[in-house]
Amino acid sequence: MLEGPLFSAAPSTPQIQQPYPGVWRITFDSPEGLTPVGTRHYPPAAASLDALPKAGPCPLPQDAIDGQATRGGYIVSLPLEANELVYGLGLQFQSFIQRGGKKMLRVNADPKMDSGDSHAPAPFYVSTRGYGVLIDTARYATFYCGSTDRRARHTRTTENREPAQDPIAGVLPAAYRRLRLGERNEVLVEVPRVAGVDVYVFAGPTMRLAVQRYNLFAGGGALPPRWGLGLWYRCGSTLNQDEVLALAREFRERKIPCDVIGLEPGWQTHAYSCSFLWDKKRFADPATTIDRLNKDHFRLNLWEHAYTHPSSPIHEDLLPFAGDYAVWGGLVPDFLHPEARRIFADFHGREHVALGVSGYKLDECDNSDFTGNWSFPEISRFPSGADGEQMHSFFALRYQDTIQSIFDRRKTRSYGLVRSSHALAAPYPYVLYSDLYDHKEYIRALVNSGFSGLLWAPEVRDARSTDDLIRRLQTAIFSPLAQLDTWYMKNPPWKQVERRANSAGRFASGWEEIEAQCRKLIELRMRLLPYLYAAFVRYRKQGVPPFRALVLEYPDEPETWTVDNQFLVGESLLIAPVTAEESKRSVYLPAGSWYDFWTGERHPGKRRLDVTVPLDRIPVYVKSGTLLPLAEPALHAEDETGWQLTVQVYGAGETPAVLYEDDGSPDPQFAEVKLSWDPERKSGSLERTASISGYRYTVNQWQVIGDSRE
Amino acid sequence: MLEGPLFSAAPSTPQIQQPYPGVWRITFDSPEGLTPVGTRHYPPAAASLDALPKAGPCPLPQDAIDGQATRGGYIVSLPLEANELVYGLGLQFQSFIQRGGKKMLRVNADPKMDSGDSHAPAPFYVSTRGYGVLIDTARYATFYCGSTDRRARHTRTTENREPAQDPIAGVLPAAYRRLRLGERNEVLVEVPRVAGVDVYVFAGPTMRLAVQRYNLFAGGGALPPRWGLGLWYRCGSTLNQDEVLALAREFRERKIPCDVIGLEPGWQTHAYSCSFLWDKKRFADPATTIDRLNKDHFRLNLWEHAYTHPSSPIHEDLLPFAGDYAVWGGLVPDFLHPEARRIFADFHGREHVALGVSGYKLDECDNSDFTGNWSFPEISRFPSGADGEQMHSFFALRYQDTIQSIFDRRKTRSYGLVRSSHALAAPYPYVLYSDLYDHKEYIRALVNSGFSGLLWAPEVRDARSTDDLIRRLQTAIFSPLAQLDTWYMKNPPWKQVERRANSAGRFASGWEEIEAQCRKLIELRMRLLPYLYAAFVRYRKQGVPPFRALVLEYPDEPETWTVDNQFLVGESLLIAPVTAEESKRSVYLPAGSWYDFWTGERHPGKRRLDVTVPLDRIPVYVKSGTLLPLAEPALHAEDETGWQLTVQVYGAGETPAVLYEDDGSPDPQFAEVKLSWDPERKSGSLERTASISGYRYTVNQWQVIGDSRE
Repeated sequence: MLEGPLFSAAPSTPQIQQPYPGVWRITFDSPEGLTPVGTRHYPPAAASLDALPKAGPCPLPQDAIDGQATRGGYIVSLPLEANELVYGLGLQFQSFIQRGGKKMLRVNADPKMDSGDSHAPAPFYVSTRGYGVLIDTARYATFYCGSTDRRARHTRTTENREPAQDPIAGVLPAAYRRLRLGERNEVLVEVPRVAGVDVYVFAGPTMRLAVQRYNLFAGGGALPPRWGLGLWYRCGSTLNQDEVLALAREFRERKIPCDVIGLEPGWQTHAYSCSFLWDKKRFADPATTIDRLNKDHFRLNLWEHAYTHPSSPIHEDLLPFAGDYAVWGGLVPDFLHPEARRIFADFHGREHVALGVSGYKLDECDNSDFTGNWSFPEISRFPSGADGEQMHSFFALRYQDTIQSIFDRRKTRSYGLVRSSHALAAPYPYVLYSDLYDHKEYIRALVNSGFSGLLWAPEVRDARSTDDLIRRLQTAIFSPLAQLDTWYMKNPPWKQVERRANSAGRFASGWEEIEAQCRKLIELRMRLLPYLYAAFVRYRKQGVPPFRALVLEYPDEPETWTVDNQFLVGESLLIAPVTAEESKRSVYLPAGSWYDFWTGERHPGKRRLDVTVPLDRIPVYVKSGTLLPLAEPALHAEDETGWQLTVQVYGAGETPAVLYEDDGSPDPQFAEVKLSWDPERKSGSLERTASISGYRYTVNQWQVIGDSRE
Repeated sequence: MLEGPLFSAAPSTPQIQQPYPGVWRITFDSPEGLTPVGTRHYPPAAASLDALPKAGPCPLPQDAIDGQATRGGYIVSLPLEANELVYGLGLQFQSFIQRGGKKMLRVNADPKMDSGDSHAPAPFYVSTRGYGVLIDTARYATFYCGSTDRRARHTRTTENREPAQDPIAGVLPAAYRRLRLGERNEVLVEVPRVAGVDVYVFAGPTMRLAVQRYNLFAGGGALPPRWGLGLWYRCGSTLNQDEVLALAREFRERKIPCDVIGLEPGWQTHAYSCSFLWDKKRFADPATTIDRLNKDHFRLNLWEHAYTHPSSPIHEDLLPFAGDYAVWGGLVPDFLHPEARRIFADFHGREHVALGVSGYKLDECDNSDFTGNWSFPEISRFPSGADGEQMHSFFALRYQDTIQSIFDRRKTRSYGLVRSSHALAAPYPYVLYSDLYDHKEYIRALVNSGFSGLLWAPEVRDARSTDDLIRRLQTAIFSPLAQLDTWYMKNPPWKQVERRANSAGRFASGWEEIEAQCRKLIELRMRLLPYLYAAFVRYRKQGVPPFRALVLEYPDEPETWTVDNQFLVGESLLIAPVTAEESKRSVYLPAGSWYDFWTGERHPGKRRLDVTVPLDRIPVYVKSGTLLPLAEPALHAEDETGWQLTVQVYGAGETPAVLYEDDGSPDPQFAEVKLSWDPERKSGSLERTASISGYRYTVNQWQVIGDSRE
């Protein structure tokens, strides 16, 4: 009955290198080649890594990490100290603190259980002790983050063991007691099918710096075009070109800001699988249609997925560069193979982007263990040498590489949506979305996304009520991509939230009032555009996630450790969304003092606040000292009125704000626009480091909100 | 970037053997030793296999099955013909037809998604073409049951491919069209971490015979003691010995049949993890308590799990025979090791069974990927050589071996509950249960359990309403173990369904009426006891699942293929449960004609019936020709009034009924009691093959239900 040993006899001695300042690679035995680092498209942002504060020695000493071959895989053990928490592992919907959990990082659509399955699992975590760890694998690795209980530590002496005593237990809810935070433990990572693995460690010393180094190692954060930060509206999928144009006109006429119109499956001759050909019955003249949209400052975004229908003109060419299993009868391009990327990109460039298409929504690129099992199996084989397990981890990123190559060649920026991602995703101008729809989970995903170099769109689709519509829109406008995705109805949801009545043109009485409330929220998004854009420039240059959890900024305040329903946007804004079920909520304000954006009321930090939230407000707090630039609410991002700013001065206004001007090219020179406030003279100033053609901000007004002597 | 090949260069040539008539073993390369067959406790029921109808050649020719080593595992491909469906894969809650699905067979508690995770995944499926397949592995194998689309079959010729044409598409709901039933496909099974695998094929020629051969290969079906088929009642976990005795008295006084009282966690000094020691504060004198229960014909069943607390007297002895990770601070016994089994069984035998304990409820023996990650990791190591992945698959079965050894040594039968199981489970007198609680899923689990040699208890716990209580109890009385598990309240649920009010003794007004309805249902269970017992004897002797899907009996009627909410009990009863949400339902009656048990109305078969169902009835249909023996409704299974039968004659009563008498020992001699009806003379007869000490049936009355000339 006895079998060979599960583990190799002795732990191996790892090789350690420091390829970039503050970044260590620890190599155990013989890693495979097809890994996130091994197949990366973007090089590390070496200069930006150099520019970060210097890191000391590796925060995890080499001898603190063990690696051993197992039966059919490899296992790594990393230390976990008492009272140390870890976060990340990609786009997790149901959990926040990852300590205490076991997560198997499988790529999957619509994970409804907290098992690690995710649209975008990333084998990266960040610790409250100020370091990050990337396990460089495309395998479905299992992370045991202090959830296990190695028996060597348990003998008779643990008899009548009480729940762990720890200094911060008191501030955490009772549910967290099971985490045994007061005990040392370990993070165990099991990687199947490999004979070794590279572990990357990213130094802090702060949590945020560790994430910054991870994002810069990935290549630096994505920089969307300005129009990408305006409103996105995806039309009903039955609309034809005239109806789309009419809808666009309606937005302009009714003064609802909008930058991007998205088309859903209906635009192609075949959608499941995809032909990538315009359906001329609905879109007889796509070039003219796009031209007319562009002239009115709309961009067009196209839905698609990659599984290529036999009727597609590229099917024949792609056949030799595809996997051995089909999806919906369509072939699965091997995007790890340069020929597959070239064939796919050339066609898309010629047939769509050349006509003015601004970008794509890349659907169905995850996996289907919970959604009807339509995807290719893990045992698939691809010409590049990848198997299906690896390909599921890579598919979305290499698909994005393919699509981005079109825009890179044209030296234009794009911004789009994608339903899957993985490690080293920061440079990709693609925002994740899901067919799941729980509002609280959407908020948690937004909070979690910033740990792992991901962007997440809590898009507005259905609404059970107008309250639900407005509450969801409030969250959407404080996200990387503010989108209404009403693919199943013909008219904007503020006219009627009920699907069938909407499409039948039966509008709710008093819908203009709801429209007005939505318009106001979208206008707020447009007013924040310079601020949001600056946050993205810092994502590009310094790796700072534009949307991030409180704990990432304030890990020394244990109260922030559990906060999965508030987040920071840019340097100075704290957002605490409310769902339709709620009329009040609790908000934690960290150190410093904070101003209510709506009332100007000042609240001291390091405490909880119970707030009652009227429907027309989402709780927003501005850090004392902030200079908050607000644009005029333009109808689209190219409207020059949006470059005229009102600067709100909070508290003493002692923290200069930096905005960025550039020419909109993919890798531009930036002019820094520094806003400063002199509290004595009560006057503000704008300094510009350079003169760049393109957007140029001017300040129309300085508006003192808080008492500047506070 | 290119790696080594995913698959070995050439498929290997398998070795084929026929160890038993109608059972073939096909060996691919070098299987590992720790498999369900390799670690089996019960030998195949060779004589019973011999007694089945002869099988022809192997229903899957050797050259129809391929096997190949993959990177880190092994893959097997089996044929799947056009219009062939497969069922099984263990205790699946969310799916029924397995064709079209991908299932990863991980052992897990509370799987809320249809991913293959299950309390009791079994790597066995049965086909409508009348054969079964067991993949002999304890690994988390992935089954792709015709869900994949091997690209070789897709070329330009599939352009504009329409949904598959197939002769039976018309009878299946639209949702099944995606299964592409009209096409040939394959069942792919990927087994990780192995270098080969044994595939067992079980011949029919009928679907039911294939399952019978699988169950007999497992050792034959479980035979519970008669008392196991009475009512089970699990007390509130806070009750002490006096309160338990008082509750038992209440059952007898209020004439509610009951055979088994179950204790929940409160009886031990430590429950998470377990000490296995009586808590003398609550149970000062367990021996006397059990004695008093036994004298009143109650059996006592004890809840426990196997994770052994340091304060347990066996902890020290078990230490060398335990896994290297703890669960809830308790050690994990290596039940694959004979010493662990011996230590564990000796203690339980001495401290519990010797006092009169009749059996156990073996909890928490699955895994915790969806329930807080409390269990041991897959990378655990056990002294037997098993790793954690294997041990999760084995744990419940080897735990049952351990506990059964106590009763085997005492030559008594036991019957109990267990929360996990796997392959070759038929001989185990343990019934599965779950903390999930969807009534429709509970019914589907009951229907599915019969495909895979499993027993399932749709126990009654919570009830949202008295309707819910009654509807759930109706399902429970037509199941292998009829249990009320009210561990969180002090009083029977018919007095008050609301937990807190129940425990506070605030009973609903008119509760006596609800109690009367419940009593009536439990009495029906007691009346069916001889019939149910006979069905279990046939499970033991012939491997026929006592509870089974319609398709298993009527695979030639495509209408049965999707029926996951009706089931057959024994030879002649068709049950169609109703949930609290419903007042009517559709029932499919297969070939033959069927009588409504409640009204005696006759319905022709091969058609659907829409029935309105009053709260006091669960739809039950009796096959025409049946002689249905009904006992007097005794208060417990040892009451001799229960041996006096009324035999209901349905239709012409042409099918003799066979009951069984025996002495109650674990492996008894049976006397067959054959009931026959002469429709001409309108008289019945009872013939007995032998005289056995113990139960002896007598017929008090023959009752003609249907018109015998029909």
